[in-house]
Amino acid sequence: MTIDINCDMGESYGAYRLGSDEALLALVTSANIACGFHAGDPQVMEATVRQAAAAGVRIGAHPGYPDLQGFGRRNMDFSPAEVEALVLYQVGALAGFARAAGVELRHVKPHGALYNQAAADPSLAGAVARAARRFSRDLVLVGLAGSSLVAAGQEAGLATWAEGFPERAYNPDGSLRSRKLPGAVIHDPLEAAENAARLAAQGITLTLGGESRRLPVDTLCIHGDSPNALAEAQAVRARLLNMI
Amino acid sequence: MTIDINCDMGESYGAYRLGSDEALLALVTSANIACGFHAGDPQVMEATVRQAAAAGVRIGAHPGYPDLQGFGRRNMDFSPAEVEALVLYQVGALAGFARAAGVELRHVKPHGALYNQAAADPSLAGAVARAARRFSRDLVLVGLAGSSLVAAGQEAGLATWAEGFPERAYNPDGSLRSRKLPGAVIHDPLEAAENAARLAAQGITLTLGGESRRLPVDTLCIHGDSPNALAEAQAVRARLLNMI
Amino acid sequence: MTIDINCDMGESYGAYRLGSDEALLALVTSANIACGFHAGDPQVMEATVRQAAAAGVRIGAHPGYPDLQGFGRRNMDFSPAEVEALVLYQVGALAGFARAAGVELRHVKPHGALYNQAAADPSLAGAVARAARRFSRDLVLVGLAGSSLVAAGQEAGLATWAEGFPERAYNPDGSLRSRKLPGAVIHDPLEAAENAARLAAQGITLTLGGESRRLPVDTLCIHGDSPNALAEAQAVRARLLNMI
Amino acid sequence: MTIDINCDMGESYGAYRLGSDEALLALVTSANIACGFHAGDPQVMEATVRQAAAAGVRIGAHPGYPDLQGFGRRNMDFSPAEVEALVLYQVGALAGFARAAGVELRHVKPHGALYNQAAADPSLAGAVARAARRFSRDLVLVGLAGSSLVAAGQEAGLATWAEGFPERAYNPDGSLRSRKLPGAVIHDPLEAAENAARLAAQGITLTLGGESRRLPVDTLCIHGDSPNALAEAQAVRARLLNMI
Repeated sequence: MTIDINCDMGESYGAYRLGSDEALLALVTSANIACGFHAGDPQVMEATVRQAAAAGVRIGAHPGYPDLQGFGRRNMDFSPAEVEALVLYQVGALAGFARAAGVELRHVKPHGALYNQAAADPSLAGAVARAARRFSRDLVLVGLAGSSLVAAGQEAGLATWAEGFPERAYNPDGSLRSRKLPGAVIHDPLEAAENAARLAAQGITLTLGGESRRLPVDTLCIHGDSPNALAEAQAVRARLLNMI
Repeated sequence: MTIDINCDMGESYGAYRLGSDEALLALVTSANIACGFHAGDPQVMEATVRQAAAAGVRIGAHPGYPDLQGFGRRNMDFSPAEVEALVLYQVGALAGFARAAGVELRHVKPHGALYNQAAADPSLAGAVARAARRFSRDLVLVGLAGSSLVAAGQEAGLATWAEGFPERAYNPDGSLRSRKLPGAVIHDPLEAAENAARLAAQGITLTLGGESRRLPVDTLCIHGDSPNALAEAQAVRARLLNMI
Repeated sequence: MTIDINCDMGESYGAYRLGSDEALLALVTSANIACGFHAGDPQVMEATVRQAAAAGVRIGAHPGYPDLQGFGRRNMDFSPAEVEALVLYQVGALAGFARAAGVELRHVKPHGALYNQAAADPSLAGAVARAARRFSRDLVLVGLAGSSLVAAGQEAGLATWAEGFPERAYNPDGSLRSRKLPGAVIHDPLEAAENAARLAAQGITLTLGGESRRLPVDTLCIHGDSPNALAEAQAVRARLLNMI
Repeated sequence: MTIDINCDMGESYGAYRLGSDEALLALVTSANIACGFHAGDPQVMEATVRQAAAAGVRIGAHPGYPDLQGFGRRNMDFSPAEVEALVLYQVGALAGFARAAGVELRHVKPHGALYNQAAADPSLAGAVARAARRFSRDLVLVGLAGSSLVAAGQEAGLATWAEGFPERAYNPDGSLRSRKLPGAVIHDPLEAAENAARLAAQGITLTLGGESRRLPVDTLCIHGDSPNALAEAQAVRARLLNMI
């Protein structure tokens, strides 16, 4: 049994430092690197690609809305054509650094509000998938398990990874419980580790119309910008290694 | 005898329209496409790459300083490492659109203040050349004839194109006469066309310390954002075709 | 009988020119000046305030979302506290130029998506009104006739102006017909002028649940960025002067 | 004897936190609040103004170049007219928050590269002073002791405060030793405190052409973004209180 652990990285910007990228790179297997729209800048991207390559971690693009002040977490009303162009731009920019470092870009995972809006809206999901597919048919599209994003990736002929969130509570339909509601975020590293183990072994359980079904999960997300990201990543990694 | 004619393009931004790209694409042989820092946005870049590809015009990246309000024309104090990263970012972003459109990125020409500062400063020129070279050894670096930019490209092992400006007056040392001085810009299309013919046939004449020497020119620049860009491009093209 | 005609102005940005501000200033009585977030920059703001002051036109702030690329026309998910701060920032910035020019800031009219979202959402409308009120109790808040924006202004103790749109079709409930639907925008200057006369004389007619009622209108909007803005403004002004 | 201690504040941006504003507000007497160009955003500005007002600290505007990624520390080539407009914009924006909070804007101190370029260039210094003066003749202009900025403020009829830097080494001509040279920044809080005491008592000693003269200092700067800002501020404050 293998499962991927991914983490958002390269979210510093100019004089502003965010995250513990170097320490996290020792604990995860995939890095989603911010591309300069919601976070990151050219120098941060270059350095993060180098560090991830040195750590042997898979490198992916983490495109977001052009909203640095809102950290890409505010919904914005982009048309599918606009989303396709902005994802293509950001994927290309990050791929340039990967190419210059002699490593390959492996996956694309949209960030924040773009991730959530594309998970729920097939036309936006299609735009993200088209952008990734036009860049390379070898890219893996990472999206919420059971969401439009995964479906759009499959339809576009891309490999997809269904993502699970050990630190988040789920709604019965497989969507994430809103951060605005209590209990949405799990702060205890050990509880997150237990969730990780369950997600890895059983996937997500959806209950729709009285019926339950399970969705397997390919990759688990650790949030790099949460205050206890390191403790969580350590606990999750230890728990998963224990299962093997 | 052949000579390239290049033009800056894709300098619109959102609701703001600039330049007559479609008409100019019928007249030039290379397009330097803005990459979103001093001008251009993802949708403009996507559309411009498509148009240039459809017109059979060579596609190049036109990276600039992150100064949309100043249109990349204000000098900024970037370190070589910062310049290298920002050029790599922009080249990658544009290359993504080229790749998605099934065409190849052929050249890199820095924009505005970055072009001028790198022409005069070997350490910045080296940073630009390194960024291009790291992205691909097949890229052509375009720079002012006789400048540090051309020298840095050659040193980096890249093909280079020495550029001449039919609409600009030159100083004896081969640098461009400052736009702040009278007579710096030639507004008469026929005079520009004559300059183009002379530059194509004889290159630039440098006078340094009493001695003169000639520098050949590989490509001629037409400014897409000048009010009579179309008339100039037509006159220059007609005059050059006449020479063949 | 008097009625105000307002127009959005100062929407140029750096090298990008938009609108026919100088010509329109001879035709309107109020200028809504962009504040640098969706359009405008400090130099454009300074110049526009001067021109409006010289023309004897009322000066207002026209704050928008921080989305230059989308020209402030894309919905964004801002909290009321965020809206309050961004309106206060932009009103203050424009008021600085007014103060430096020795004229008074008279009104606030939100732009684009912020205008539309605040028209429909009382909590956002309240945030806009609070920002204006905190800056000065002498500001007039301009909003869609019958909308939450006007109500929120009144509740905050501000004078309000109900706005009508001679170039736009209305829904029965008094909201503007979506630009995405055919017939939403009236392109014929004479038809717009007739609408202006009717709006000035009778206001807007709302039909809700079989009952009709009329809402008076205090100011009429001419869009400065439409291609035939000048023709429209001329026709509307001539028609209204004719009524007096 | 009294002397002011000022500190740059409000330099956070969106999700990015910088500085220990709340703790520093208990130690200083003037706050220079970033205005959204090199750092700060509308919500940060609003919160910082409130905190400074609650702490009874003087509120000033801290305008900078529009270079968030470079934190306003990169030289940029702005014309005096451009500088005048960008300072006026930022002063107005911050004054809006002050006005809304019922407190007064007391001073203007340019940030980073704008501060340094204006200190050395009388035409830029004049532009900064004109912007401040046009906003209000009651504003104090803060600038490097002995620099063009102080001279320009006096010429414009503004009150000025000559600033000293306890944490920085000086050149014989009164300019600050470049941060790129060793020994430019003093990291030991006790050494900084001794410098503060000397600057407060004796001012700065300039040696020009063999002659020495002393320049009095009105305010001492503590850098809020340095890692040991708090320790420094505490040491400086304690040492100065000791003198009284």
